[in-house]
Amino acid sequence: MKSNLSQHQKAMSHALQAAKRGRFTCSPAPMFGAYLQTPSGEHHVHRMEAAQGCLLQDALGSIDGPIAAVYCSSEPSLAAVELLHRKGCKALFVATLLQPQDTSWENTARQHGITLEVGLLAKDAQALNHDYLFCKHWQRPFIRLKLAASLDGRTALNNGKSKWITGPKARQDVQTFRAQSCCVLSGSGTVIADNPSLNVRWQDCPELQLAIAESQVRQPKRVIIDNKHRLDNSYQVFHLPGETYLVSEKGDANGPGAVLEVNKCGQYVDLSDMMQRLSEQLGIYSVWVEAGQALAGALFQAQLVDELILYQAPKLMGQDSRSLLTLPQYSDMSQVPELIIRDVCQIGTDIRIISRLK
Amino acid sequence: MKSNLSQHQKAMSHALQAAKRGRFTCSPAPMFGAYLQTPSGEHHVHRMEAAQGCLLQDALGSIDGPIAAVYCSSEPSLAAVELLHRKGCKALFVATLLQPQDTSWENTARQHGITLEVGLLAKDAQALNHDYLFCKHWQRPFIRLKLAASLDGRTALNNGKSKWITGPKARQDVQTFRAQSCCVLSGSGTVIADNPSLNVRWQDCPELQLAIAESQVRQPKRVIIDNKHRLDNSYQVFHLPGETYLVSEKGDANGPGAVLEVNKCGQYVDLSDMMQRLSEQLGIYSVWVEAGQALAGALFQAQLVDELILYQAPKLMGQDSRSLLTLPQYSDMSQVPELIIRDVCQIGTDIRIISRLK
Repeated sequence: MKSNLSQHQKAMSHALQAAKRGRFTCSPAPMFGAYLQTPSGEHHVHRMEAAQGCLLQDALGSIDGPIAAVYCSSEPSLAAVELLHRKGCKALFVATLLQPQDTSWENTARQHGITLEVGLLAKDAQALNHDYLFCKHWQRPFIRLKLAASLDGRTALNNGKSKWITGPKARQDVQTFRAQSCCVLSGSGTVIADNPSLNVRWQDCPELQLAIAESQVRQPKRVIIDNKHRLDNSYQVFHLPGETYLVSEKGDANGPGAVLEVNKCGQYVDLSDMMQRLSEQLGIYSVWVEAGQALAGALFQAQLVDELILYQAPKLMGQDSRSLLTLPQYSDMSQVPELIIRDVCQIGTDIRIISRLK
Repeated sequence: MKSNLSQHQKAMSHALQAAKRGRFTCSPAPMFGAYLQTPSGEHHVHRMEAAQGCLLQDALGSIDGPIAAVYCSSEPSLAAVELLHRKGCKALFVATLLQPQDTSWENTARQHGITLEVGLLAKDAQALNHDYLFCKHWQRPFIRLKLAASLDGRTALNNGKSKWITGPKARQDVQTFRAQSCCVLSGSGTVIADNPSLNVRWQDCPELQLAIAESQVRQPKRVIIDNKHRLDNSYQVFHLPGETYLVSEKGDANGPGAVLEVNKCGQYVDLSDMMQRLSEQLGIYSVWVEAGQALAGALFQAQLVDELILYQAPKLMGQDSRSLLTLPQYSDMSQVPELIIRDVCQIGTDIRIISRLK
């Protein structure tokens, strides 16, 4: 019994590993992987190749003979279950459910006499699609704020110069994060100041090169807050592969890119409304923020930073340089926002600190 | 031959380990350890218990029978070599030389027909007494600047409040560093603002408790720059066990503690002259700095920070809070002081980053 269980876990971990290989390509779909066994003991591994790519029924269609058992990182579609039945499948293992309210596939499997087990390596499967599940639960994307600063917490000199605070390895790491996110969010101020590309550059990112071919690169959507219509189409972000959305106030749409209209909140756009619309209208479940201190601070104050990814360069830029983010003036240490360190490591010559709000 | 060498290394590493156990007690002497073998294969391990404590000849005096071989972390005294000879010692191993110009012990050993080998585990032995050797070479102590800040590089709120930025584990770690330093340096501003004790508290420091008994605690000298004579004897630093020195300008000595008179440099004391006098007059070869942003910045600018030990608490204190250290306003990234990360780790809920000037 014990060795059986361990064999099932092994098979499921193949399915999860396959799913994880889709992390750069499958958005806005969640990651999905399956491990199929034939009666003779042969096996096949399939994963979500891209958002509109290989679903389980396509995979099954490509296999001629019968199927004995299937291990899926999350629930299969109803159509896939029908196909599994037609191929003689008797056992279906599912790690975790992404759409627990939809039980049609499950009912069908039972009707066909397929043995069903849900929950094998469930925690790993949930971690795999953490951002997707977070978004389903909270009706807004999981938000990662990236900041790069010197050891004394400065992001640019007083005159705005900041190229480059961090080293090439840290910048490659940023590319990897971008590539895994549904969108990259920034503000018009950053676009005007730096004319950044905010895209994924396969040729600059060894981790991406190991995982996918250049032709498979999926550009995350670029979302720029531009409620004062300061951007024209002279900036790079409008001319690179991938979509660029400009966020402005409802009824005030205007600009070179596609537009996302959101509610107003004081003098600014309603960031909370924006996040909700990003998930509802564009299917975005993870946001990667690269912004200046004002937008970074505003997100923080609106409790819209779930994870802070801080790259620290071993430099000292001094008290006249620009601050990490704009926050209120606190009069007591008890008011200061606290975080919890999740990970600290060295990346090249720099340090990366990942923390979450306490 | 090979197994012999490895046996020698093993014996020497016992001597080095013994030496290291003196790191909280031996200052202002360097760490010293010895491993003694009797002809029957018995062995004895000795270390420098305290600055005026157990020297090799004392250790030898406590052993009745003859000695076959001795392994020393650094060179023995001339008197110890004479005693070794009288005890029949035929082999003397020395890891590294701390006083290479003094060859009297060596000549005597050779005259007595003692086989001499210098350089076994030399690098480890040099690392052990790094600060002592640094001071001998540069004629000033090795200077460690300790700073504690939030993730956005802030050391206190605008109103001065800062208790406590870091957690208890980080504060224990600071105690361990203090306990290993020859002196703790601060400025009168810090003393006036916080009335700190700047001492070693055995009862608060588990690492110290594991290494030594409370009665063995050696208080590092407290050195406070007070060139404006702002301190009176109402502050803690003047009433705790251990010596407190006030630094003021030459010919301007006055104040409640012992006084170290140094040259003037502009409106301030000459920090470089102060460091030289600390080593020459007080035998200090390592300085642990706990200071405000002004003294921290001044030391940095005078190139008198050899190692920066930065404790970062996972908090965000905002742009209105106090800066890490006072530096000039830079107009180009190429002017920014660069460091090299030597070590990054989590200490309790905080992060500790050790870096050195590039």
